[in-house]
Amino acid sequence: MAPASAPLQLYDATLRDGMGGGGMSLTADEKLRVVHALDGLGVHLIEAGFPSSNPKERELFDLLSRESLQTSEVVAFGMTRRRDVAADADEGLRVLAESFAPVCTLVGKSSVLHVEKVVRASREENLAMIGESIAFLGAQGKRVLFDAEHFFDGWALDCDYALETVRVAARAGAERVVLCDTNGGSLPHQVQEVVEAVRASVPDVALGIHTHDDAGCAVANTLVAVAAGATQVQGTINGIGERTGNANLVTIAADLQLKLGYDVLASERLARLTETAHLIDELLNRAPNPAQPYVGKHAFAHKAGLHAAGVRADASTFEHVDPDLVGNHRDVLVSELSGRATVIEKAAEAGIDLDEDAAARAVERVKQLEHEGFQFEAADGSFELLMRRESEAYEPLFRLESWRVIVEKRADGHVETEATIKIWAPPGPDEQRYVSTAEGNGPVNALDNALREAIGATHPHLRDIELVNFKVRILDEAKGTGAVTRVLIDASDGQRVWGSIGVSENLIAASWDALVDSLEVGVQAVRERAT
Amino acid sequence: MAPASAPLQLYDATLRDGMGGGGMSLTADEKLRVVHALDGLGVHLIEAGFPSSNPKERELFDLLSRESLQTSEVVAFGMTRRRDVAADADEGLRVLAESFAPVCTLVGKSSVLHVEKVVRASREENLAMIGESIAFLGAQGKRVLFDAEHFFDGWALDCDYALETVRVAARAGAERVVLCDTNGGSLPHQVQEVVEAVRASVPDVALGIHTHDDAGCAVANTLVAVAAGATQVQGTINGIGERTGNANLVTIAADLQLKLGYDVLASERLARLTETAHLIDELLNRAPNPAQPYVGKHAFAHKAGLHAAGVRADASTFEHVDPDLVGNHRDVLVSELSGRATVIEKAAEAGIDLDEDAAARAVERVKQLEHEGFQFEAADGSFELLMRRESEAYEPLFRLESWRVIVEKRADGHVETEATIKIWAPPGPDEQRYVSTAEGNGPVNALDNALREAIGATHPHLRDIELVNFKVRILDEAKGTGAVTRVLIDASDGQRVWGSIGVSENLIAASWDALVDSLEVGVQAVRERAT
Repeated sequence: MAPASAPLQLYDATLRDGMGGGGMSLTADEKLRVVHALDGLGVHLIEAGFPSSNPKERELFDLLSRESLQTSEVVAFGMTRRRDVAADADEGLRVLAESFAPVCTLVGKSSVLHVEKVVRASREENLAMIGESIAFLGAQGKRVLFDAEHFFDGWALDCDYALETVRVAARAGAERVVLCDTNGGSLPHQVQEVVEAVRASVPDVALGIHTHDDAGCAVANTLVAVAAGATQVQGTINGIGERTGNANLVTIAADLQLKLGYDVLASERLARLTETAHLIDELLNRAPNPAQPYVGKHAFAHKAGLHAAGVRADASTFEHVDPDLVGNHRDVLVSELSGRATVIEKAAEAGIDLDEDAAARAVERVKQLEHEGFQFEAADGSFELLMRRESEAYEPLFRLESWRVIVEKRADGHVETEATIKIWAPPGPDEQRYVSTAEGNGPVNALDNALREAIGATHPHLRDIELVNFKVRILDEAKGTGAVTRVLIDASDGQRVWGSIGVSENLIAASWDALVDSLEVGVQAVRERAT
Repeated sequence: MAPASAPLQLYDATLRDGMGGGGMSLTADEKLRVVHALDGLGVHLIEAGFPSSNPKERELFDLLSRESLQTSEVVAFGMTRRRDVAADADEGLRVLAESFAPVCTLVGKSSVLHVEKVVRASREENLAMIGESIAFLGAQGKRVLFDAEHFFDGWALDCDYALETVRVAARAGAERVVLCDTNGGSLPHQVQEVVEAVRASVPDVALGIHTHDDAGCAVANTLVAVAAGATQVQGTINGIGERTGNANLVTIAADLQLKLGYDVLASERLARLTETAHLIDELLNRAPNPAQPYVGKHAFAHKAGLHAAGVRADASTFEHVDPDLVGNHRDVLVSELSGRATVIEKAAEAGIDLDEDAAARAVERVKQLEHEGFQFEAADGSFELLMRRESEAYEPLFRLESWRVIVEKRADGHVETEATIKIWAPPGPDEQRYVSTAEGNGPVNALDNALREAIGATHPHLRDIELVNFKVRILDEAKGTGAVTRVLIDASDGQRVWGSIGVSENLIAASWDALVDSLEVGVQAVRERAT
């Protein structure tokens, strides 16, 4: 059992508890990207889900078993055995035992109300369910965490019984007992009191804390639990989760590290906090909350005038922490110079030769495009092209004359899609006109097919480029289908994945722009390597 | 001076501090609606702004001076006098003195850092600015609140000076001193410590608390300050405000009343909490946060299955408070696990008569559609239609013959979109054929326009239905643009908002299905009301 003085652990529940939020859904491949992002951030434990509650989860665990992670361990999640069934005969526990994951979290009841009304078991049987399930997985070589569900509500009803579930779990070999405020209604003084009481009663048990935001106190409840002796904090990225969400692990990590002096993340990893938070929102097709502590676009925004002047005089006058520490930036003080330095750095990374003037033009272009609704955080490919277009060496793939897409639902119910493009390539005195028409199972697919048909012979590398993701968001939601549309496409050539973006009133026009960027980034990279 | 044991006051800063958030703007008439909503809720003090910082504010104060409010008092906000100017010669203070508002809040510096770097005054002059400004407004017959800006950061730098600003304000006649965590970076244990220390040092001064959410603890910081003796809480509705926002007064009011036993709002007024929070979001043209504590659409949502069964058995198993108390309601999310009981319950809510067999068919249909990629959690409208289609009474809007969309980027760079639909309506022996063509700024907009043109005359209610949101997601990212597309549309008739969904390989076909559901839900609701 880990000593209570062990370093603080971050436990991410985004892929399991987080998915309980309305409209949350990720494919197995997207979940794998989340896992790598969390590993890169340096989270200690990643709860990936229940290994076989459905084919998608099974696929994820198959994928994960073949990955190697730098900093994180994968956790499989499940429940204590069913009532009146032997642990080794419980299907769920067998699935956990057979999973590759070295750590299992088992959730069980600590509240007499839930034992009685939901599980409908005797109090003794519930304790046996907890103890035998943990012991079974331990005997199978797993490290086991016990999520003590409804612990705080249960404490209020019968603190002796709640405490007994902790003792039983510890005796059965649980590495840690996680006190869960499952309904999220507890306030900081209550959490503090209960965690302190548990520490005093069972000082040898390592504790964790798992809170929800139903009373708007999930982050504070986590912090007071840590002060009271919990050494693992559970939460989700951006606080996603059922109802009002789980504790926001992004805020908690920054509070612990920057304000309370805990060493939870190496500083170069903490600087990925903003990027990681945004990536996971993008994968979930959620608009990142601009007001989110630490990582929101407005988190360090200052109004012109007094505040901005104060910040210029001494940033600590109007900023609680340095935004760089969490990979965010100040909004009013992004001077052109610092912008230019970043662009030159980014260009060098991508092997693009940009002088000061070209970098200044690129900075202006970014500002203008962001004003129009572009956002380059998830569109590194388009950003690379934007810089490339300001360099001397830039050569476009082709010159567009026109394109047309027809989508038709015929009287027989069949849907047909056809795209025609007219382009000139390669641009220059010897350019030739190409007209090609292709079908597709959707408008963007048809345009993609037609474009590849037209220039595929000149750019054989296009065959290796695959579009792997396609996302659409409406920017001014108040205007419904008449609003500006932002399309994000991820493409891959098998070696790297890049994002591209298109913004237009017209969904198809935005898609076309993102599509052309996608293909061009891949072709330019090959050109670069060839020269 | 109010005794420290005075009842707790709610002080709303939505119309002043809240307006500092990005993109916040309200007309004077809209602000008046906010004031009446806050008065209806029972907030004690409403900070309306600075009476003449601009013509809009002046207009608001003119309007307000002619209103009578039931429960709230209007507060005018301003700053302490300028450096080296007599209070009665300070233009800002004269404006406040002349305002009709009975209460004035004056903000001044309590941190030596700000006195030195921002005001650039001596410490003595800053104390004189505070004392003389308060005394001047007091002599003019105003009740004065002193907002001690940057109090907590200032305390850390020089607690004696911070305390001296409180003493000076009290001696000058301030009714209350409000301790402000202006940069929002404080944590609960710090706020508690400081408020307790201030109470101990100046026990006769009534205190208030004003926090921001930069460390994710604004609500908790407010609650601990109250526990430590603050008797006024300042915040904004839905936590709007600069950067990460102010403390959310909605959450705080509910926490104080329902969990801590303070009598801040009469219970019939607390039941307006959800409605008030949404109204103010609507006025600000913000989409209400579905995850917001107490008032969010998902705040009391449960996934079907174990949770839903628990809630049916005893709501306290999975709900921290009764949603009725804050004017919200329980919502059961439809998911793959949903059973017949949930469907029958949902149907009853929507006023649809479903027998056991029809419910069973609906459940089967949901399972099949979810397998194909449908997801009804965010598509309550489509789910309602799905149930309706299994009932005897269902009548579709029309019978589709065919549709066609053409999107063209012409050689001159212009993008044109045109949709043609051919339908038969109303379905039955007398059906007639309608052919209509419309343009749009995108393919879905064009289809929407064409469909409304075809059936708008028969269904005049369509005019009231607006598409307010449109989201696209690719379900199997590995297939890129060749993958299955899920489209979600939110529509509104000004009274309610509903979601609809379409899933297809083809983006336009998926959009069409979601679009037709959107319009049909609205029309069916009117039919329902008519029968």
